[in-house]
Amino acid sequence: MKFLHTADWHIGRTLNGYSLLDEQEHTFKQILQIAKDEKVDGVVIAGDIYDRAVPNPEAVTALDKMLREINLENKIPIYAISGNHDSAQRLNYGREWMEHTSFFLNTLLSEAFKPIETADVQIFLLPFFDPLDARVYYKNHGMDEDEAKKITTIGTAMQLVVNDMVKLFDPNKKHLLVTHFAVSANQNDDLELTSETTSQVGGLATVTSDQFKDFDYVMLGHIHTRFASPSDNIRYSGSPVKFNIKEARIKNNGKGVDIVTIDKTGVSHEFKPLTPKTDLIVLEEDWQTLCNPDFYKKQPINKAWFEITIQNFDRSEHVQTNIRSELQKRYGTIVELDYQVDKSDADLQTMTTNINEISPEETVDQFFQTITGKELSNSQKSLVSTIFNEVEREKK
Amino acid sequence: MKFLHTADWHIGRTLNGYSLLDEQEHTFKQILQIAKDEKVDGVVIAGDIYDRAVPNPEAVTALDKMLREINLENKIPIYAISGNHDSAQRLNYGREWMEHTSFFLNTLLSEAFKPIETADVQIFLLPFFDPLDARVYYKNHGMDEDEAKKITTIGTAMQLVVNDMVKLFDPNKKHLLVTHFAVSANQNDDLELTSETTSQVGGLATVTSDQFKDFDYVMLGHIHTRFASPSDNIRYSGSPVKFNIKEARIKNNGKGVDIVTIDKTGVSHEFKPLTPKTDLIVLEEDWQTLCNPDFYKKQPINKAWFEITIQNFDRSEHVQTNIRSELQKRYGTIVELDYQVDKSDADLQTMTTNINEISPEETVDQFFQTITGKELSNSQKSLVSTIFNEVEREKK
Repeated sequence: MKFLHTADWHIGRTLNGYSLLDEQEHTFKQILQIAKDEKVDGVVIAGDIYDRAVPNPEAVTALDKMLREINLENKIPIYAISGNHDSAQRLNYGREWMEHTSFFLNTLLSEAFKPIETADVQIFLLPFFDPLDARVYYKNHGMDEDEAKKITTIGTAMQLVVNDMVKLFDPNKKHLLVTHFAVSANQNDDLELTSETTSQVGGLATVTSDQFKDFDYVMLGHIHTRFASPSDNIRYSGSPVKFNIKEARIKNNGKGVDIVTIDKTGVSHEFKPLTPKTDLIVLEEDWQTLCNPDFYKKQPINKAWFEITIQNFDRSEHVQTNIRSELQKRYGTIVELDYQVDKSDADLQTMTTNINEISPEETVDQFFQTITGKELSNSQKSLVSTIFNEVEREKK
Repeated sequence: MKFLHTADWHIGRTLNGYSLLDEQEHTFKQILQIAKDEKVDGVVIAGDIYDRAVPNPEAVTALDKMLREINLENKIPIYAISGNHDSAQRLNYGREWMEHTSFFLNTLLSEAFKPIETADVQIFLLPFFDPLDARVYYKNHGMDEDEAKKITTIGTAMQLVVNDMVKLFDPNKKHLLVTHFAVSANQNDDLELTSETTSQVGGLATVTSDQFKDFDYVMLGHIHTRFASPSDNIRYSGSPVKFNIKEARIKNNGKGVDIVTIDKTGVSHEFKPLTPKTDLIVLEEDWQTLCNPDFYKKQPINKAWFEITIQNFDRSEHVQTNIRSELQKRYGTIVELDYQVDKSDADLQTMTTNINEISPEETVDQFFQTITGKELSNSQKSLVSTIFNEVEREKK
């Protein structure tokens, strides 16, 4: 069987107020074309389909159209799960009708233990969940209350879930897992996350690739670059669209989908690149260079979005200048403008860090440091983590 | 063909903070049982399925289950439309998958011109829309821009819509319309609205029953009591649940669904009552009576919800008393507590009117009168109306 693996569409997302819907529709068309050209047996969407628990109406309409084009117009099965950005309950609406046309969508942990059976492959769709979801699920399925209370990390929860899945394995088939977590290559790895989500909240980063050793292939969502894949058969497809400055810095774009072939002889994957409609370009130069025609005329002026950081910037020299306006005249759309200030002014530098790129916990930690000069203690960090976990839950 | 006609479920609604979901599930079970007992060919839900544009996750899950029970478990077709409380775009999600099992749901005006064809009946599903929606629709369908601008009232818009539907009539079939508006019996009628919605905003009340004369039967939603039906074949089913004090005052409950039989020989309808799980009882008595065991022991204490208005109430006599607590000891759950104050204190009385029972426009009007002593002028009223219209649109 041949699958197209994609994830982290984040429909409804904006970049500093600029809608990414056009960009998302542009890459979607390419994804659909690849699925048709490759004659895949299914499109896998590994979570974070929407950007938020309550997407705006335009996002709902846009996603409905995309899913219809794949599943109803082109009769291609869909295998999808919810991610941490999606509301499990909201996205669950209508799923039983969708199954009639082989559109499978799991959003609740309890739905993950019924693999979809194809001739050669068992497909396990495991949506994002947190330790509390696992505690509730296992308590409802006969686990002793005291035992269930021990499920405090996602690593522990995942092991229970995987063990239960392995029990369902048909030895005559290959086993495919689709899920949505930060997975590190082994227990000691420090994973550099490019997902902007609260991925470290609640110990999410403690899922390790060895936990998935019984599966023939694992299709992951959550981290937005495929370069974070922990192994050759446990892979992130990455998001189809660049969402922030960190992703824009990756030189060869790197955006695309994987075509994964799974049959009795084995498993292979092939990367298919996607091209953006409007590229996102990072420039980090001093003011003189940025204003120099020899420099800016080499850029794709008015055809890309620019994220510009002005280096060695001295505000006192530019009191009379409307910096943004001057740069827009030369480059077109500037979705982000930053100033690299004097290194010695450490406090100010901390404050100007783009908070979109760090987790909420880190933001609190940095703020605390700026104000008090001390780091958060471990118990304070734990408290902050608990609070953000609860906030995340309530948003859904 | 035999249809069950219901409307105005308002899933997710609360009554002064008390969730009505239990009550809604209780009446839903009866509706499903009636549909099965009567072996209906379809369940019609005439709008305001949800209570709000963005229902909470519990409401989404509850509705999904109800619709599944009707359509997937019991294989009964559903014919549904969105009302003014629903978000047309949000509720539209997934509708094309649902059509595969004869679950038809229209939420956009543009979807209303493709009747569902059965052997004997053409079913037109016309969701709630406003004059601006009609203007956009007709402009997109070739109407001259100046002509389209003349569509300023719902009455004008409805006439265009009905004319276009009549063109699609198959003379060999009966014609059923399902829609969601305040419809008065004729152009001069002053309709007493029991819907709490902004039903008069934008001139909605100007749809008249004579506009529907070409249809054999019209199933309406929007007004919550069937007693508001403008004629014998243009009927409101009413909501299955009592939502407010006005509805609670109706003596014989009056809640139910209609079984409508339509075939070549003609049309007939039969009322099937629904019984509440927890009744909503209005008491309007003086303090002495309310505290008298001879009175309160005759009430269904602890089995109903009470809305109590204390008549001839003099606050100065009860400074030391926790009124609500004293009444709860005797009656159980009190979802609303009001005081009927001295008639001469007109200003205060105006201020204590339950604003849930009047339209936003009336609220502004009353407030203006209280403060200035004058009524709003017609141009001021028109401005207020425009503003609320825009607010309603933005909420969706």
